[in-house]
Amino acid sequence: APIALRVNPDVDPKTHAKISTGQKETKFGIGMEHAFAVYKRAATLSHIDVQGVSVHIGSQLTLLDPYREAYKRVRDFVEVLRDEAGITLRVIDLGGGLGIVYNAETPPTAQAYGAMVKEIFAGMDVTFLFEPGRSIVAKAGVLVSKVVYVKHGESRTHVIIDAGLTELIRPAMYEAYHAIEPVAQTDAPQQKVDIVGPVCETGDIFAKDREIALPAEDDLLVLRDAGAYGMVMASTYNARPLIAEVMVKGSQHRLIRPRQNVADLIATQKIPDWS
Amino acid sequence: APIALRVNPDVDPKTHAKISTGQKETKFGIGMEHAFAVYKRAATLSHIDVQGVSVHIGSQLTLLDPYREAYKRVRDFVEVLRDEAGITLRVIDLGGGLGIVYNAETPPTAQAYGAMVKEIFAGMDVTFLFEPGRSIVAKAGVLVSKVVYVKHGESRTHVIIDAGLTELIRPAMYEAYHAIEPVAQTDAPQQKVDIVGPVCETGDIFAKDREIALPAEDDLLVLRDAGAYGMVMASTYNARPLIAEVMVKGSQHRLIRPRQNVADLIATQKIPDWS
Repeated sequence: APIALRVNPDVDPKTHAKISTGQKETKFGIGMEHAFAVYKRAATLSHIDVQGVSVHIGSQLTLLDPYREAYKRVRDFVEVLRDEAGITLRVIDLGGGLGIVYNAETPPTAQAYGAMVKEIFAGMDVTFLFEPGRSIVAKAGVLVSKVVYVKHGESRTHVIIDAGLTELIRPAMYEAYHAIEPVAQTDAPQQKVDIVGPVCETGDIFAKDREIALPAEDDLLVLRDAGAYGMVMASTYNARPLIAEVMVKGSQHRLIRPRQNVADLIATQKIPDWS
Repeated sequence: APIALRVNPDVDPKTHAKISTGQKETKFGIGMEHAFAVYKRAATLSHIDVQGVSVHIGSQLTLLDPYREAYKRVRDFVEVLRDEAGITLRVIDLGGGLGIVYNAETPPTAQAYGAMVKEIFAGMDVTFLFEPGRSIVAKAGVLVSKVVYVKHGESRTHVIIDAGLTELIRPAMYEAYHAIEPVAQTDAPQQKVDIVGPVCETGDIFAKDREIALPAEDDLLVLRDAGAYGMVMASTYNARPLIAEVMVKGSQHRLIRPRQNVADLIATQKIPDWS
């Protein structure tokens, strides 16, 4: 088993505090200053075969520098472990976290990331593991939602859609940006609106002051980049059944998970037979 | 049907921004300055029978003043509607929002709230509706969780429990406080710890610097006041099946919703039969 190292790159990873994992106070990993002793002890245990080390510094990272600083420390650590403790690691798990473009971010390409890894670990005879998640699947999924009502208020216009934080919690949870576009081409004038869900929370909001071609009732909107941390974080809050999932391949599409209904939500609940 | 009025009490409701609903920029209700015209128009529509007005200024309110200010405006509005437009409302829905004691809050009692309502609406011949939720059910539910590991780190001690933001998202979502206590009496020394869940997010934390009798692995902890906005907001993030729900009555208990298993999570998913 690899041992998880907590490496604070000393370079601000510039990601949301809720998904930054390298800081000393977080719950993850073992601090570098203790790891040496942990490996030495693990090496003495007959039922433990120390294979490697794993590190993960955060999620939705848009800079290479935090990676570079963290990975240099991992490399140095692996060398010290070999030279000073005679422990040779065969596996280095470099985690994930590579960011994507939600709005105007400029994350490193996979190529640039790979070149950086190659440079830092040049000459090391180990197997590398990577755990990219968001950078693979985020752009592979979208959330399609229908406009319920366009509410022209005194101070702003709210476009109320039938998706809510129940289907995509990232905006409510991390103040995250998702691009939102009409599904059908339109000549409607661009206007700044708030795009909100129907859930009974003020935080159920997808976009504030977003410039969009003003949609009409029943228009479909697409919320982009919902393939990561979308349906996997869905809830049935407000007694909202889970929505359907459809897979698309070229011009084909298949229902891969049917919509829940309210009966499904309560199907396993039981009324107690108090004696 | 009642019409929802948006009333900004001009008194800070002192609740979390994500659950404060009276401000002009929120998506809820119709501003008072437009409501008069809306009621007059509704009164001319043959298929609409305007019965009343509803108002809701926020959730987890711990002061009477915001209610008082808002309700006075509702009263004045109802009187103006009667006197100037000849529209007599029969129902006033005053919403909910009465706060509870999670930590050291001092919310008004139901009695004090009721007396305030009585005073403001004295002499009005209407039916009142109330929508208390949290103040009824929050204290009726607790989340019981087992300690997975006590991690003595360099800068702090993390008590890792087997519940996460998947079961109780309020701390991660609203920085909410929940009292946490050992289920069994203990003489263990009090210590400041972070109590965290096992989910792969730094935000999966229930309490920071919380003084608690230091628990050991497998000890049960109870997270109090989880009856409102607890299981109803649960998700299966990190492929974590929904937990069981047990109802207790005196010394009896009954399973009212069985634990999900991983097979349940994927039971309705289908692999596409691409042609």
